[in-house]
Amino acid sequence: MSARKATARSKKAAENKPAAKKVAKKSANKKAAAKKTVAKKAPAKKTRAKKAMAKKASTPKPASAKSKIAKAAAAKAASQRRVFFFGGGKADGHAGMKETLGGKGANLAEMTSLGIPVPPGFTISTDVCADFNRRGQKLPPEVKADVLTALANVEQLMDLRFGDPERPLLVSIRSGARASMPGMMDTVLNLGLNDDTVVGLAKLADERFAFDSYRRFIQMYGDVVLGVPHDRFEHRLDVAKEARGVQDDTDLTGSDLRAVVRDYLEIVQEATQAPFPQDPQVQLWGAIGAVFGSWENARAIAYRRLNDIPDDWGTAVNVQSMVFGNMGDNCATGVAFTRNPATGERNFYGEYLKNAQGEDVVAGIRTPQPINEESRVEDTKKLPTLEGEMPKAYKELVKIYKRLEKHYRDMQDIEFTIQDGVLWMLQTRAGKRTSGAAVQIAVDMAREKLITRKEAIQRVDANSLDQLLHPTIDPSKAPPVIARGLPASPGAAVGEVVFSAEGAEAKAKGGAKVILVRIETSPEDIVGMNAAEGILTAKGGMTSHAAVVARGMGKCCVAGCGALAINYEQGVMRIGDDIVREGDILTLNGSTGEVMLGEAATVLPELGGAFTELMKWTDKVRKLRVRTNADTPQDAKVARSFGAEGIGLCRTEHMFFEPARILVVRQMILATDVRSREEALAKLLPMQRSDFEGIFRAMDGLPVTVRLLDPPLHEFLPHSEADIQTVADSLGRSLGDIRHALESLHEFNPMLGHRGCRLGITYPEIYAMQVRAITESAVNASADGVRVKPEIMIPLVSHEAELQRMRKLAEDVIAEVRRENPGTRVKPIIGTMIEVPRAALTADMIAKYADFFSFGTNDLTQMGYALSRDDAGNFLPDYVESGLLDADPFVSIDTEGIGQLVRMGVERGRQTRPDLKLGVCGEHGGDPASVRFFAEVGLDYVSCSPYRVPLARLAAAQAAVAEQSEGESD
Amino acid sequence: MSARKATARSKKAAENKPAAKKVAKKSANKKAAAKKTVAKKAPAKKTRAKKAMAKKASTPKPASAKSKIAKAAAAKAASQRRVFFFGGGKADGHAGMKETLGGKGANLAEMTSLGIPVPPGFTISTDVCADFNRRGQKLPPEVKADVLTALANVEQLMDLRFGDPERPLLVSIRSGARASMPGMMDTVLNLGLNDDTVVGLAKLADERFAFDSYRRFIQMYGDVVLGVPHDRFEHRLDVAKEARGVQDDTDLTGSDLRAVVRDYLEIVQEATQAPFPQDPQVQLWGAIGAVFGSWENARAIAYRRLNDIPDDWGTAVNVQSMVFGNMGDNCATGVAFTRNPATGERNFYGEYLKNAQGEDVVAGIRTPQPINEESRVEDTKKLPTLEGEMPKAYKELVKIYKRLEKHYRDMQDIEFTIQDGVLWMLQTRAGKRTSGAAVQIAVDMAREKLITRKEAIQRVDANSLDQLLHPTIDPSKAPPVIARGLPASPGAAVGEVVFSAEGAEAKAKGGAKVILVRIETSPEDIVGMNAAEGILTAKGGMTSHAAVVARGMGKCCVAGCGALAINYEQGVMRIGDDIVREGDILTLNGSTGEVMLGEAATVLPELGGAFTELMKWTDKVRKLRVRTNADTPQDAKVARSFGAEGIGLCRTEHMFFEPARILVVRQMILATDVRSREEALAKLLPMQRSDFEGIFRAMDGLPVTVRLLDPPLHEFLPHSEADIQTVADSLGRSLGDIRHALESLHEFNPMLGHRGCRLGITYPEIYAMQVRAITESAVNASADGVRVKPEIMIPLVSHEAELQRMRKLAEDVIAEVRRENPGTRVKPIIGTMIEVPRAALTADMIAKYADFFSFGTNDLTQMGYALSRDDAGNFLPDYVESGLLDADPFVSIDTEGIGQLVRMGVERGRQTRPDLKLGVCGEHGGDPASVRFFAEVGLDYVSCSPYRVPLARLAAAQAAVAEQSEGESD
Repeated sequence: MSARKATARSKKAAENKPAAKKVAKKSANKKAAAKKTVAKKAPAKKTRAKKAMAKKASTPKPASAKSKIAKAAAAKAASQRRVFFFGGGKADGHAGMKETLGGKGANLAEMTSLGIPVPPGFTISTDVCADFNRRGQKLPPEVKADVLTALANVEQLMDLRFGDPERPLLVSIRSGARASMPGMMDTVLNLGLNDDTVVGLAKLADERFAFDSYRRFIQMYGDVVLGVPHDRFEHRLDVAKEARGVQDDTDLTGSDLRAVVRDYLEIVQEATQAPFPQDPQVQLWGAIGAVFGSWENARAIAYRRLNDIPDDWGTAVNVQSMVFGNMGDNCATGVAFTRNPATGERNFYGEYLKNAQGEDVVAGIRTPQPINEESRVEDTKKLPTLEGEMPKAYKELVKIYKRLEKHYRDMQDIEFTIQDGVLWMLQTRAGKRTSGAAVQIAVDMAREKLITRKEAIQRVDANSLDQLLHPTIDPSKAPPVIARGLPASPGAAVGEVVFSAEGAEAKAKGGAKVILVRIETSPEDIVGMNAAEGILTAKGGMTSHAAVVARGMGKCCVAGCGALAINYEQGVMRIGDDIVREGDILTLNGSTGEVMLGEAATVLPELGGAFTELMKWTDKVRKLRVRTNADTPQDAKVARSFGAEGIGLCRTEHMFFEPARILVVRQMILATDVRSREEALAKLLPMQRSDFEGIFRAMDGLPVTVRLLDPPLHEFLPHSEADIQTVADSLGRSLGDIRHALESLHEFNPMLGHRGCRLGITYPEIYAMQVRAITESAVNASADGVRVKPEIMIPLVSHEAELQRMRKLAEDVIAEVRRENPGTRVKPIIGTMIEVPRAALTADMIAKYADFFSFGTNDLTQMGYALSRDDAGNFLPDYVESGLLDADPFVSIDTEGIGQLVRMGVERGRQTRPDLKLGVCGEHGGDPASVRFFAEVGLDYVSCSPYRVPLARLAAAQAAVAEQSEGESD
Repeated sequence: MSARKATARSKKAAENKPAAKKVAKKSANKKAAAKKTVAKKAPAKKTRAKKAMAKKASTPKPASAKSKIAKAAAAKAASQRRVFFFGGGKADGHAGMKETLGGKGANLAEMTSLGIPVPPGFTISTDVCADFNRRGQKLPPEVKADVLTALANVEQLMDLRFGDPERPLLVSIRSGARASMPGMMDTVLNLGLNDDTVVGLAKLADERFAFDSYRRFIQMYGDVVLGVPHDRFEHRLDVAKEARGVQDDTDLTGSDLRAVVRDYLEIVQEATQAPFPQDPQVQLWGAIGAVFGSWENARAIAYRRLNDIPDDWGTAVNVQSMVFGNMGDNCATGVAFTRNPATGERNFYGEYLKNAQGEDVVAGIRTPQPINEESRVEDTKKLPTLEGEMPKAYKELVKIYKRLEKHYRDMQDIEFTIQDGVLWMLQTRAGKRTSGAAVQIAVDMAREKLITRKEAIQRVDANSLDQLLHPTIDPSKAPPVIARGLPASPGAAVGEVVFSAEGAEAKAKGGAKVILVRIETSPEDIVGMNAAEGILTAKGGMTSHAAVVARGMGKCCVAGCGALAINYEQGVMRIGDDIVREGDILTLNGSTGEVMLGEAATVLPELGGAFTELMKWTDKVRKLRVRTNADTPQDAKVARSFGAEGIGLCRTEHMFFEPARILVVRQMILATDVRSREEALAKLLPMQRSDFEGIFRAMDGLPVTVRLLDPPLHEFLPHSEADIQTVADSLGRSLGDIRHALESLHEFNPMLGHRGCRLGITYPEIYAMQVRAITESAVNASADGVRVKPEIMIPLVSHEAELQRMRKLAEDVIAEVRRENPGTRVKPIIGTMIEVPRAALTADMIAKYADFFSFGTNDLTQMGYALSRDDAGNFLPDYVESGLLDADPFVSIDTEGIGQLVRMGVERGRQTRPDLKLGVCGEHGGDPASVRFFAEVGLDYVSCSPYRVPLARLAAAQAAVAEQSEGESD
């Protein structure tokens, strides 16, 4: 389950949250798709009537109504209730009832109870949804009765009557699920209009408004309930506009619209072979049924699958009295955030339009106005504000937003409508925000004592921190997206295309910014990858070589972009119809996987004081330590600056790829006897020693886990003719001889081949050299006063005998170095990776020879799942997309399967050795959902790439808080 | 543990047991390495004395001795006793005390108690060994006292005295561990001789015999106890022979030897700076200490490691009165088997030499004589027999052997010495035998009611049955061994070397017998493999493609023979200094892994009535069903003739390699859209249908499990230019296009890649075709009255969602075929392989969608152990040889690690679905130790290659018997 959630979260995070304006537009969008433009001028004489229409609900309801509601409430136990009334300051539900009422319904009830002006209405619970669909789209009869009772209460509060030709009550019918499913289900507005009530409405407001409302109701109801294609209606409207020679709907008069309505009714008659239902009751049941039924529409099902929303949750239906922001100049509609959703600043922030409906904001016909001075942006700096234009309503809005924020203890996204100067609240919910804003808001609210520090920690999505640490793309200045790969390493990068690592290095030395494009990368490409701004590969998954190394470097990477057809020889690639040549400019968005042809503007991140503060709080709360995976002193320093508390994985092999070293490494591998191998190793010894010394110094006082040589030897071998010749010459052997040696090192499944400690067992001299280098460098650094804590890690142990033998070898070398350096206190501890399923299964036996375990969950996943991360790109994305798997198990640990192995390893290891130090150094160490799992199973630390350290710290703190609160609730 | 034992057993089985003669030599070899030739003629006057020397022990001992022994026995509790006396018809120990007394000591005690004439002596228990070595090579004082008491008893029984110059008692000091460790530890004979006692001995026998015995004692003691290099002694002897101008030791006279003894004493003095110990007591402690100490010598340690004998077992030390077969012509020594060890016939069978020591048999100076008419062979048909020459001793020997066989209820390997016409038994133990003899003896003994049928079943080493089913090499007519690989598939093969599958096919069609030699094989080579007599590969392990396929075909295969340097282009290979060209004759021994240059004579197996009988018994006892892995009707028939009760694994992919089909398969794989893939599949459908139909007919009445397509698609792709062109042409696509497609199918770790059900998920049309072919062929066969039981198996499931989806697909196709064939009763059941660790971990969830599980323990081992069987050849043999691993986990299932996954799969699967059918179809299904494990965890069946079926039946029966007897003892 946690993995599922994490994916959903990471998807959201990857959306690259836009500025407040866009957010506001989105929210508005959802409101009233059918509410179109409005009569420009409501005649003055109608004003009073409109006011009257709104009056009753906002004033305390009479005693009789009160007693009626109380009676209804008493009539049934809360658990049996399926229709929940809200209005006039009282509600059957509350904010904690999202399961039953959906998010919208729960918050409408809550606001009502708070005494906030909400148009009265009622919510039909989510339970009814399943019931409805099970019964073949029929409402249970007792629900019908309850609906009628609730509707009567609304009539009374509004002093209007449903279907009354004089004072008709109009209602909206909206869906509202437990989780937000924007735009997925159906909505019907203005329900209650018919040939009679439209006349009454015209009297209360004006004719144009009334018939425009009726027209749109017919279209909406026709579309949603009766299945009449909406383009038939739109076509008729176009005809009317054409006939009148006008452009906009707003230019049609009341009588124009009256004619349109007539035609609309005919369209319905024609399409359904039945008249448009004139009975508001019939309309009501039709619309409620349609909204419940829309839970099962294809769009909604697809959305649920994508977002892991269970099918059996169901939606609630909200039936609510209509209020109008488009009845005249003293009407308005708007959206606001209680704090700035882009920056998190503590300013009330929003937009509104006078005499308008929410849709107008989206339509972009008019520029929305800022609600106050703080909300002004460049485009709106000269426009009047709500504060200026409708000071009374604004003042009330301010009072309400403060009330809401304080009540909900979180930043709120609110929607309001002002009808004839009277403020109505239509929605409140926790506001979406950028990750920067999330941090700022959480920290501010904790400082304001609105929430506790622990709550502040829980408020920030750990995954979203990635955005804070990497440059992002300014979407307004981005070229077109030509392909999409996996968002393998976050951030943004712009540069010239280069197709080889050498080329990347050369061009970068010349000062150019380059994007390294490869079919896939291999360890030989590391220098080139380091020189590049970003990396793009055609093959490989989220944990391919390119992805892992890029994340380690904190460098943007888009991987597994299958659309690329790369031709190295010609220095060109085809992406669909586009031809991209070496030197062309590409932009990569590593947070979304987008590849853009051309140059985008990028925005550098700023880490504010709030971030630093929040990180401090996390450190106080969490139990899980956070280390980093770092192979160089530089990486180590970066990670330390992000708060790493040690190195959990230092891969020695990356050190072997430097041009000055690789030849020696090759000599070592191709040596035909122990002596010549030892000669080559003797040359490597001082190099490795200096590597480690730098790292120990950078990590003064903190533990450093060095993993001995792990990858199959052939990864280091030469491929080009020239390189093979060089090695042959250096060894005084024939080309054929070397070629034969290279062939014999070929493996069918290198992942399961001669690697890890198997190398140490076959060639003990290699591991002996590495242990010597580690110990000697630690001795040297220690002699300079550096506090070294070396930990030697033996990789790929599958049987305790392997560790037993390698431990003995390491201990012997350490003892030797200690004898050579009398008085030194340096004494590395020795442990192993648990990365082979068998190692987890037999952890009790392996623990006999280990001071620590470090779970290699990448390999554990590869082997436990029989999934090669380099090859999974051919099918794994399909698995996840088609819903077969909840998540890519390389991104979030598969707690259900692979997690069992980790748990076993922990339990069995500690069973043998209670003081066993336990950590994880796979990619999962930087994934918040996985970190929570690791905290839960009781690891001592996680280790992740430097740029993921803050994220892991936060996730670890969240896990600790969650555990505490579980403990408290137990 | 069972895996360990199995290895030890399989090693023994692989030794290719020689005929009785060789066995006899071996046994004799172990006896008395230091007893060299003997005086040719013992003077007649000494005869009486010699008789006297032997008399006392073979007649009932006097009451005083009896009471002494009884007293000693009463003096200490059995558990405290560390010195165990035997002699005169009474013994402190018995045959059941091998742990304490070692094998030799236990049987000497047992024979003594049976009243069989055994030279008296005593055994110092194995407990003392550890104690001795722990104390820094010192005997505990109380043991010393007990030894002296026991020695006094021996003196009394023999009427000789230790160190007595007149009637000196001589003793042998021999090791004897719980498990036989032939030649690994030290022995000292003739102990008790010194300058005084040698004179007494000369008087009792003759001078030459006495000094020759003394000489050899000094050399042996000097070497074993004092560490004087034995070549110094040998050199001195050569000098003496040279001086006398003689060739053989036997030509030296008594006085020559007296001089040699003098020099030997000097050699010791010189080397040790001390005189040779003259005190027999000192000699005794020295020799006992040396034998205990030899438990820790390098040879013994290495042997224990190789044979998995725990270091803490220790050896016992046997101190026994000497008897001599070389004191004259009424002396003899011999070895016999109570039944013929080569054929199992119920004939007393043995060899002896007059006036000789065991070593003379080995030295080959004289041809050993047959003990009776039945023991005559070609070489010995004219020699006199023991029965003829010494009828009285022979008669007694017959009485004794019958007694022993009846007592031990098994065929015995016995050693005897006749001193002056008096028979002494020196050893009895279960006799080694060929696998054919083992079957014959077990069945005969059961028929004779000597043992039960269940015991008969336990008496045959299941692994050894391999020998019965395959041709073997006549070692007397075998060319030299030029290389050694892995014994990948048993049997023998002789043929011309061919380096390509096509060549093998062509030559075989021309009537030639060929050996296919490849660096490694791939599925494309199958036709050539089938055409060849045997297969030899340079790479790959016991479960490489070559090995698995060869075993399936019952064809001899030597795999992973690293010494081969093959050059395909030139049609030549280098093996060390030998050059082997195409067309040269090679002989392969698939049971030992030997490669011979030239032609060996092979012996075809004969399956006698005893084998058939034994197999019948196994079927009555076992609970585990035995199925076979078969891909063709031919294989299915062979397996059925061996008793297979169904097909547990029918691999559909092997059917794809026929030349007529492979092009269509390639078209299917390279299709760029579903429609053209379906076109190719439509062509494959009738082919697969006819495949399955043949198999269903061959398996009438028995279940057939068909596995849907499993291997990565690239295994089917063309490699040669011509083949690629053919495919391109047939698809109307460019060569470059096809090449690009081939590249994109390349995988880094195909084992963990796009294979198994992942193919079915990506290309559901492939699996749909296969399910249709299976169902339709079953319908067709069923319409003809064949009783079909089809089972469809989905491979490589790692997550239940995969199986859920594939099951749905299969069910839909089956339903369709059933609709198309109204009235058919055919309805395949659907199950899955459990071959991915995660599948075992989540078997409870997977079982929701499975009618059966078949454990794929090959892949489970590969993934659980992170061991690619194709690549493990580079290090796994070293692992096993160096003792790091007990056994190759691909040969015998690793019960400790991978076994946990099987157990989990069983338990969790049945937890969800108690009626789940459970089997195994990995290579382990044909390994007896693994079969026992599978029986223990409660599988319903195992499935193995056809030639392993009898072996699996036997192993399954043994498991059932073992379980019953455990149940009884509980």
